[in-house]
Amino acid sequence: MPNAILSLSSAPPVSLSFKHRSNLFPLTPLQLNKTLQLPTFRTPPNNGKFSRKPLAAIIEKETAISERPETFLREGEEDPPISSSSSSPSSVRARFERMIREAQDTVCSAIEEVDKGASFKEDVWSRPGGGGGISRVLQDGHVWEKAGVNVSVVYGQMPPDAYRAAKGDASLDPSVKPGPVPFFAAGISSVLHPKNPFAPTLHFNYRYFETDPPKDAVGAPRQWWFGGGTDLTPSYIFEEDVKHFHMAQKQACDKFDPGFYPRFKKWCDDYFYIKHRGERRGLGGIFFDDLCDYDQELLLGFATECAKSVVPAYIPIIERRKDTPFTDQHKAWQQLRRGRYVEFNLVYDRGTTFGLKTGGRIESILVSLPLTARWEYDHNPEEGSEEWKLLDACINPKEWV
Amino acid sequence: MPNAILSLSSAPPVSLSFKHRSNLFPLTPLQLNKTLQLPTFRTPPNNGKFSRKPLAAIIEKETAISERPETFLREGEEDPPISSSSSSPSSVRARFERMIREAQDTVCSAIEEVDKGASFKEDVWSRPGGGGGISRVLQDGHVWEKAGVNVSVVYGQMPPDAYRAAKGDASLDPSVKPGPVPFFAAGISSVLHPKNPFAPTLHFNYRYFETDPPKDAVGAPRQWWFGGGTDLTPSYIFEEDVKHFHMAQKQACDKFDPGFYPRFKKWCDDYFYIKHRGERRGLGGIFFDDLCDYDQELLLGFATECAKSVVPAYIPIIERRKDTPFTDQHKAWQQLRRGRYVEFNLVYDRGTTFGLKTGGRIESILVSLPLTARWEYDHNPEEGSEEWKLLDACINPKEWV
Repeated sequence: MPNAILSLSSAPPVSLSFKHRSNLFPLTPLQLNKTLQLPTFRTPPNNGKFSRKPLAAIIEKETAISERPETFLREGEEDPPISSSSSSPSSVRARFERMIREAQDTVCSAIEEVDKGASFKEDVWSRPGGGGGISRVLQDGHVWEKAGVNVSVVYGQMPPDAYRAAKGDASLDPSVKPGPVPFFAAGISSVLHPKNPFAPTLHFNYRYFETDPPKDAVGAPRQWWFGGGTDLTPSYIFEEDVKHFHMAQKQACDKFDPGFYPRFKKWCDDYFYIKHRGERRGLGGIFFDDLCDYDQELLLGFATECAKSVVPAYIPIIERRKDTPFTDQHKAWQQLRRGRYVEFNLVYDRGTTFGLKTGGRIESILVSLPLTARWEYDHNPEEGSEEWKLLDACINPKEWV
Repeated sequence: MPNAILSLSSAPPVSLSFKHRSNLFPLTPLQLNKTLQLPTFRTPPNNGKFSRKPLAAIIEKETAISERPETFLREGEEDPPISSSSSSPSSVRARFERMIREAQDTVCSAIEEVDKGASFKEDVWSRPGGGGGISRVLQDGHVWEKAGVNVSVVYGQMPPDAYRAAKGDASLDPSVKPGPVPFFAAGISSVLHPKNPFAPTLHFNYRYFETDPPKDAVGAPRQWWFGGGTDLTPSYIFEEDVKHFHMAQKQACDKFDPGFYPRFKKWCDDYFYIKHRGERRGLGGIFFDDLCDYDQELLLGFATECAKSVVPAYIPIIERRKDTPFTDQHKAWQQLRRGRYVEFNLVYDRGTTFGLKTGGRIESILVSLPLTARWEYDHNPEEGSEEWKLLDACINPKEWV
C-alpha cells in the first residue's frame, strides 16, 4: 500500500498547504510500525506563499490545542465498535493510551532531570474525526543533541485494500468485496541522540492496533496486535553498558515468557539490518511486530513492562558516560555511526519510508534523524581499535546476557 | 529489477568477502543512470574477519591495477559486437570513453588548482571479464570537503528480463524467449561539496549505453542511448552565480538544439524533486535520460560539450565564493541543505537506490553524500531571509536565463 491515501474521517476532501497536510498515518500493521509519529500544527511562517504541491489528495486537518486532554478517546460504552470512537476506561485501548502517556511523562522527566536546564518543547494536536497526540522534542541540550518523544492516538477508516494487505488475503473471503475497515492505533515513539560519543543513542517504540472487521464481512472477529521494541546504538562498546541494557530487556521479557527475549532479540538484530553495509545500525535490544498469538492482557502487560524499563535500562548508562572526555576523533566516529543511523532510517525503516511515501508530517517522521551526521569515503577502522570492535559487533551480533 | 543479480562474465560464481563484492552495475537505462559508480579494490583491513553476509549471489571480482590503461576497451575490428568486448578507435564507445577520461582529468586538475595543496586519491581497477574504471576522491581539502570524480567502462551480459525492463516489452516479440543481452556502459559521475556555505555543490554525470539485441531476436537492431546532466546546489542564492551556471548549460544546449535547454532544464527540476519535502534539492541545471531520438553523432557531441562546460560553469563561482566570511548560522543552514541532499540521494535517486538494493560497491555509490549534514526539528527560515529565498527557489523553480 505504498500510495494509500487515507481519509481519516468522513469530512470532504480539502486542499491544504504543506504545513497542514500532515495527518496521514500508515495503516497496515507492518507499515504502521514505527510511524506513529506525531503530527503537530504550526502556522506556516510563509503563510502558504511557497505553495508546495500537495502530496496527498484526501486528508483531514489536525488542530493545535493549548492543553493536553485527559484522553484522546471519547467517553462511551464498554468496548464499543471502534467506529464510534469511544471507549470505556477499562478497555485495552484506554489502558494502552494511559500507559503511553505515562511513559512519555516518565521518560521526558528523566531526560530533563539529567539534561539540567534543557526542556522539551511540546506540541499538542487533535483531529476532528478522532484522536490526537502530543509531540515533545528537546534539541541542543547539554546532554542530548536531539531527543524526541511522541505519542499519538488515532482512529478512523482504512480502505479495504489496506486491511487485506494488513491481515493477508486468506483471512477474508475473496468473493466478498469488503467495505472500509474501522481502525484504532496508538503508540509511543522515541529517539534520543546524546552529544557525548561515549553515550549511546536509544530508540523505543510501543504500539497497539485494532481493526473492526469490514462492514460486509459479517461475523468476522475484531483483530488486534502489538508491536514495538527498545534498542541501543552506541558508537563505542562499554560491555557493562550493553550487558546492563540487554539484561533490562531480558528481565522485562522473562516476566512474561522465557522465550520472549531470545526471540525478540534476534528479531531486533534482523530488523535493524543495513543490508547494503552488511551491518546492523547498533547493538540491538528487542523488537516484535504483529504480536497477537498471546493473551491480549498478557501482551498489554508486556508492552507496559517494556516501556517502564526504558528509564532504568538507559539513564544509568547516560549518567556514566555523559561527561566522559573525548577527542575530535571520537566525535568523528560517532558522526560516522550517525550516518549509518540516517541510512537505516531513510532506506529501510518501514515506518519512515512509508511515512515519506504517503505524505505523513515530515518533521514528525524525521525527528528520528540525528542533529548531525557524517560520511567519509571508504573509512575503515584499524583492526583491533575500539571503533573496529563496535563495527565488528554490528556485523556479527553478539549475545550480551 | 530491484533484485537482479547479474553475472558480468561467464566465470563461475564465487563467494567473496564484502570488500570484494563490489562490482555489480545496474543495467537498465533508467536504473543505470547515475550508478556508473566506480568500484575500487582494497585489501580489507580486517582480512575478512567480519564475514559480512553476501549481498549478491553471482559476482565477479574486480582487480586493483597500478597504472591507468590507455583504454578499458579491447582492440579489435571496426564496431564489433559488444560481446567481443573490442572496439575500434573511432567507435562511439571508444570516443565516449576518451571523452569521459579527458573530462575526469580536466575537472580534477581544475579542482586541485583551486584547492591548493589538496590532491585526489586515485583507485584504478579492471574486471577480467571486461572493463574497469578510475575513481578519484579528494576529502577534507581547503576548498572542498568532499569531491568525487569517477569514470567507469563496463560490458557484459544482462539478463533478458533486464533488457525487457530497459526497452519495454513492446520492442521484443513476446513469443520469443530471448537469451542474455550483451551490453556496454560507460560514464562519468561526480559530486563536489565545498566547505564555504556560500560556495555551491555541483553534481554532473554523463553516460552512454549500448545493447546488442538478444541472441535469439534475429534482425533486431543494436540499441544505444545517452543520459546525464549537470546541476547546482547552493545554500545561498547569488543571482549572478546561478545565472552564470544556467547560461553555461543553455549555451552548451543551444549549440545542438534550441529546444534542449528548456526541455532538459524542466527535466532536471522534475528529477531532483524531494517529494516528501515538496522541494527540489537545489537550483537545477539540465538533466536527460534514455536519449536516442537524435542522431548518435549529435548526441555524442552534445554530451561532450556538456562535460566540457563543467569547469567554466562552476569554477568561476567557486573562485568568487570560496573565501567569503561566514558565521555559524550560515554553516548550520548549509548543513541543513546537505541533509536534504542526503534525503534525495538515499530516498529518490534511482542510481543510488538501485545500487544499494543490488549490492553495488557502497563506498562508490555513497561518495555522493556530503562529508557532514544536519537535521533540525521543524526548522523554518524567517520569511524574507536569505535562507527563505533559497528555500522558495527550491520549492518554486525559477527561470534563470
